[in-house]
Amino acid sequence: MEKLTRNNRIVVVTKILTENPNKVIGLSTFAEKLNAAKSTISEDILIVRKVMEKLNLGSIETIAGAAGGIKFIPGMSMDEKKSFALELCEMLKDKKRIVPGNYIYMTDVMFDPHVISKAGVILASSFADKDIDYVVTVETKGIPLAYEVAKNLGVQLITARRDTKITEGSTVTINYVSGTSGRIQQMSLSKKTLKPHSRCIFIDDFMKGGGTAKGIVDLLGEFESELIGIGILIDNIGSEKKLVTDYTAIVDFLGVNDDGEISMIPSEKFR
Amino acid sequence: MEKLTRNNRIVVVTKILTENPNKVIGLSTFAEKLNAAKSTISEDILIVRKVMEKLNLGSIETIAGAAGGIKFIPGMSMDEKKSFALELCEMLKDKKRIVPGNYIYMTDVMFDPHVISKAGVILASSFADKDIDYVVTVETKGIPLAYEVAKNLGVQLITARRDTKITEGSTVTINYVSGTSGRIQQMSLSKKTLKPHSRCIFIDDFMKGGGTAKGIVDLLGEFESELIGIGILIDNIGSEKKLVTDYTAIVDFLGVNDDGEISMIPSEKFR
Repeated sequence: MEKLTRNNRIVVVTKILTENPNKVIGLSTFAEKLNAAKSTISEDILIVRKVMEKLNLGSIETIAGAAGGIKFIPGMSMDEKKSFALELCEMLKDKKRIVPGNYIYMTDVMFDPHVISKAGVILASSFADKDIDYVVTVETKGIPLAYEVAKNLGVQLITARRDTKITEGSTVTINYVSGTSGRIQQMSLSKKTLKPHSRCIFIDDFMKGGGTAKGIVDLLGEFESELIGIGILIDNIGSEKKLVTDYTAIVDFLGVNDDGEISMIPSEKFR
Repeated sequence: MEKLTRNNRIVVVTKILTENPNKVIGLSTFAEKLNAAKSTISEDILIVRKVMEKLNLGSIETIAGAAGGIKFIPGMSMDEKKSFALELCEMLKDKKRIVPGNYIYMTDVMFDPHVISKAGVILASSFADKDIDYVVTVETKGIPLAYEVAKNLGVQLITARRDTKITEGSTVTINYVSGTSGRIQQMSLSKKTLKPHSRCIFIDDFMKGGGTAKGIVDLLGEFESELIGIGILIDNIGSEKKLVTDYTAIVDFLGVNDDGEISMIPSEKFR
């Protein structure tokens, strides 16, 4: 391959880093792909790093040693996070979303890549320094969000199922009590899913009483693993006492009033 | 904000395009963000476009008119697609994946962002010229892949459920016959999910008899909408006659032999 100009190399470096968040990439990978010396690549990376940091687009870390290289940690400025939380509130306050029982229809939002990709960066950045092994969720609506968080953190996603499947092999099933209804529910994970002594975060679309999060703690306990953080898109703060207290949410849902208006505001961190 | 150099602007342009596939972005958005004239931005974009096309990283299209701008269409060279298909086969051929009943455990692969993000680009590029409104899947294992395809095509994801939920409002439920077991199954979609007369593709993790794909055709029919393509990660070609014939798969699964070896090869397109 012919030599590329600095401009051209910078396009490729930026694209590879953006597409591979939190993945350590050796300088030699770039050097081979771009047919350039490692010292040249280092200079390219320095330019990319400086502008990313200046504009709050994320940071680039250097990992020393034989398995070393660089990794990109996605970021977003606090202003952008706040304006995202506000936009999300506007989207969710639409009265047409109310379905019988005063529930809010939000399936479209949870499966909208434009919304979920940004929410994923925001929640991932809350846990970027926690040295996570896995992101855990429960089927179904939270899967795209949990997937984005896992992708941004460069780790594997694990999805607990409501029932067991023959394609999962041996499974561990636990019972847990829903925080709001008090009903007993089940969730399962394949024995093959995670290594013991893992550090996990739980990501979900909506939190009411926090019963599911408590269930996740028990389920991970069966794998001698630990829940070290919880991230939620929408927190129902109108709900009674929560079973968990330490978590990050992007927006707070306060309820539907008698005029059928939905009360939704950015969570405290993003106001 | 102070002026940025061309190198710096190119980092930002590349990052925004990579993160927003198939989304039309006006030149003025870049101009404001980068504090530069539109003519300058046009030159930056030309540089990015040329190197992307030269290295098969994707293409950049110009959309004329008032709502115009540019959009990035992700791409991958055929060589890269083929080597991805081969790597995926190696990953799936591990004998430890066999669970009782000669099923292959592949949940970890379907929830691995490194695998699924590449598979998403490959499947999306098969449908890039089809003018799609929605990507449709059925819960649960195919959701991350379908989400990546939707993101790459810049459209909304729709997930059919096995049961109905109170948070979905009114739903449409259909019965369909599994292609392999002959059992009757159900799937549901909220009435709010999709606009009539939509063009959809169906994305799933695994195809056996094709019964689910046939069911999706019926379900979309209830919304006066059309299925115009099917994309699958793994095709069980050892399975009997298929109910559908026109689809794209990345790898073919031929079965498990008497020695407990898994036969898995890249699909014809990617050999």
